[in-house]
Amino acid sequence: MVISKHLLGLANTPREEITLILKTAQYFKEVLSRPIPKVPTLRGKTIVNLFFENSTRTRISFELAEKRLSADTVNFSAMGSSVAKGESLRDTVRNIEAMKIDTVVIRHHAAGAPHLLANWVEAGVINAGDGQHEHPTQALLDLMTLRDKFGALENLKVVLVGDIQHSRVARSNIHGLKKMGAKVGVCAPATLLPRDFKEAFGEDVHVFSNIDDALRWAQVLNVLRLQLERMRSGLFPSLREYAACFGLDRARVEAAKKEVVIMHPGPINRGVELSSDLADSEYSLIIDQVTNGVAVRMAVLYLKCGGDLEIANGGS
Amino acid sequence: MVISKHLLGLANTPREEITLILKTAQYFKEVLSRPIPKVPTLRGKTIVNLFFENSTRTRISFELAEKRLSADTVNFSAMGSSVAKGESLRDTVRNIEAMKIDTVVIRHHAAGAPHLLANWVEAGVINAGDGQHEHPTQALLDLMTLRDKFGALENLKVVLVGDIQHSRVARSNIHGLKKMGAKVGVCAPATLLPRDFKEAFGEDVHVFSNIDDALRWAQVLNVLRLQLERMRSGLFPSLREYAACFGLDRARVEAAKKEVVIMHPGPINRGVELSSDLADSEYSLIIDQVTNGVAVRMAVLYLKCGGDLEIANGGS
Amino acid sequence: MVISKHLLGLANTPREEITLILKTAQYFKEVLSRPIPKVPTLRGKTIVNLFFENSTRTRISFELAEKRLSADTVNFSAMGSSVAKGESLRDTVRNIEAMKIDTVVIRHHAAGAPHLLANWVEAGVINAGDGQHEHPTQALLDLMTLRDKFGALENLKVVLVGDIQHSRVARSNIHGLKKMGAKVGVCAPATLLPRDFKEAFGEDVHVFSNIDDALRWAQVLNVLRLQLERMRSGLFPSLREYAACFGLDRARVEAAKKEVVIMHPGPINRGVELSSDLADSEYSLIIDQVTNGVAVRMAVLYLKCGGDLEIANGGS
Repeated sequence: MVISKHLLGLANTPREEITLILKTAQYFKEVLSRPIPKVPTLRGKTIVNLFFENSTRTRISFELAEKRLSADTVNFSAMGSSVAKGESLRDTVRNIEAMKIDTVVIRHHAAGAPHLLANWVEAGVINAGDGQHEHPTQALLDLMTLRDKFGALENLKVVLVGDIQHSRVARSNIHGLKKMGAKVGVCAPATLLPRDFKEAFGEDVHVFSNIDDALRWAQVLNVLRLQLERMRSGLFPSLREYAACFGLDRARVEAAKKEVVIMHPGPINRGVELSSDLADSEYSLIIDQVTNGVAVRMAVLYLKCGGDLEIANGGS
Repeated sequence: MVISKHLLGLANTPREEITLILKTAQYFKEVLSRPIPKVPTLRGKTIVNLFFENSTRTRISFELAEKRLSADTVNFSAMGSSVAKGESLRDTVRNIEAMKIDTVVIRHHAAGAPHLLANWVEAGVINAGDGQHEHPTQALLDLMTLRDKFGALENLKVVLVGDIQHSRVARSNIHGLKKMGAKVGVCAPATLLPRDFKEAFGEDVHVFSNIDDALRWAQVLNVLRLQLERMRSGLFPSLREYAACFGLDRARVEAAKKEVVIMHPGPINRGVELSSDLADSEYSLIIDQVTNGVAVRMAVLYLKCGGDLEIANGGS
Repeated sequence: MVISKHLLGLANTPREEITLILKTAQYFKEVLSRPIPKVPTLRGKTIVNLFFENSTRTRISFELAEKRLSADTVNFSAMGSSVAKGESLRDTVRNIEAMKIDTVVIRHHAAGAPHLLANWVEAGVINAGDGQHEHPTQALLDLMTLRDKFGALENLKVVLVGDIQHSRVARSNIHGLKKMGAKVGVCAPATLLPRDFKEAFGEDVHVFSNIDDALRWAQVLNVLRLQLERMRSGLFPSLREYAACFGLDRARVEAAKKEVVIMHPGPINRGVELSSDLADSEYSLIIDQVTNGVAVRMAVLYLKCGGDLEIANGGS
């Protein structure tokens, strides 16, 4: 299999590659459980983390993945940089590339920024979240977490709950889940669902307009963070009303009288889209998601930075 | 001896453990004098530095200690993080822990934050300063500096000078010094001394209301940084008056006609609590404090991250 | 040859040392082209990057150079530091030094800050740009780029174009070029040229008051970034007028009907001092400058941190 050196989104990643990444990630998950959770695989490779948006967990997760592969890492945040002097993204990146970087991990507020980069530079480009477009490593860690839990993704019923319209996590998950044969639903107020939703994602995606219907159908609810600033834009009337129609708590889940698991990409607005109790309950896979995040990112970096496939083949 | 994997404060650290940390720190001080001041002791361990407050020296000191023990380090500051998105400390830390961290070094503006963390996570927690509560590694480096200078801490007369009320450095020093058998005094305006001082720290702590009395009694004056914002709160009338009653300069020290050493945790307000001349004089141990800071932090991290005690036993 | 452990500016760096740095940089450029572009030369050395001014490329370039020499690095930026608490540069640096640092790389808004530091500390000090004074590693990478292109610097005709008055890049370049035997010109509006220019840099520096005269004479145009805030100070009337008299584009260069190369220290104001087309054209050495930046900084750090001269002697 020929693997692209970039990971720009799951929309354009073949199913076989997703399968290989997940398999490789399982291998690295085992590495992470060793007393010294480190391999020399990317020694001498240099990875730059270019974060134009705030991030805690994604940046730290990538940085840990890089260090556990023994890569050299350089961090760059838009604060305190030439971007403040008005340097263009293109010049920033061309300059960084001229310093002989192997891979750039980029988070950017503009959808498509990683794709532009991939056209401009020789280095591999990993999308760590671009605007409202894609966040492919988040979706991959979600897939890994579900495969761990259910054994397979085929025919698994997963509903994404919340602000589908503005969510790169939702977009990447829908693409990834459909490729892997899962059944996908979304549950959102009409104002937080893209108008051309069926055109973009296919007629086979189920649309639920309240959380109880979604609960009846789903085996998995992946609850998105509600961007509170949307409320100010009038896209939903109040937190209270949102929580009443789309918020999840233990009572609601237990009323469904069925097995279901809850996921959330974080950071959680506790008490808004998810009750604190439920987030920390036996229904929740949230901590597994975070743990798997490092393993998935190790797999992506390993496969994209030119690691051979032996580990992946031998590892599961 | 069973050693806690946390260092939350000196109030709850046994004397034997303090002695072991100081002994181990002497060993690492020797390591630091080698041409390659580095040991592979914590290779494969991952330490996260979580700084919710500004810091230069403490963060750099910890980071150097970690790198010289060959640990992998990840830095996190509250600026540019999900904390800006309103994520709670608890979620931040649970997520970081889910990434398989060995130890978290935390500085936080809220007293008790490291204790909360230690309850929430499996990782070891090192307090790098919490609100007005404790700053144990600062006190340990002060103890080490005094042991280096005087040979022993038993019966040594040490006065903490300045804003006792708001100082975590003072709290940790008083606990540590008393445990090690030193005689402790404080010298502060009444408004900068806690009301329940004797109850909290014991009847045996001497209280001096002017610096000349303190000088007559003490072998060591550990001068605290005056937080200039206290003045605005009306806790003392003016810098000039404060300097007149509690400020130290060479003339004052020489008028006492006795041997005395001066310490300061930094950063110094030169000309306020300490004259510039005295800070850089032969009376000052300030530079030794900083040097010992790296060795003490190496010792703490080594002992808390599961290093065995062989080095400590063989090292002094 | 005895080499200073500091690099404060090119004004006081002997020609032989510049030659040695350039020769050593050629060796490291070869290292950078290897599959694993890394050498263990500075293993166990600790370098602190002290950046009091915003910077993308210079900081990343130094950090990469340090990591490829296997040094341990600690980053410090004025944001989020004790400098915000009012700690003086002197105290900051003395404290950092007390932690046993080998070398400090400093960028500071005040001209002369690195010189002060070099007097205060035992560590080596590398100037990464100080106010409007010097930026020696930028000039060294410019020299390296020109030596690569033309084989020798002797008698090469180089014009610095733009805001000479406020440019540390111009100052360092003029000193370096003259030492290496190049012929130097400057091209700037009278308001952006120091009054005592001839006194400071010598009667032999050519002064051009328009870009077409400069183009007729030069083999190399090194175009400086126009600080747009100068316009607000009334030092030039408008961007349009500046671009008309001093801006470079392809038409202007081709009208000169001669071989010429274009350099720029970045970040470029595309369409102001340099057209976008020309910056990315076959005339441009800008990307080579960035690539050589890492090699030059490796050479400087290697030679200044006590590396022996064997690599340098064997390397070209």
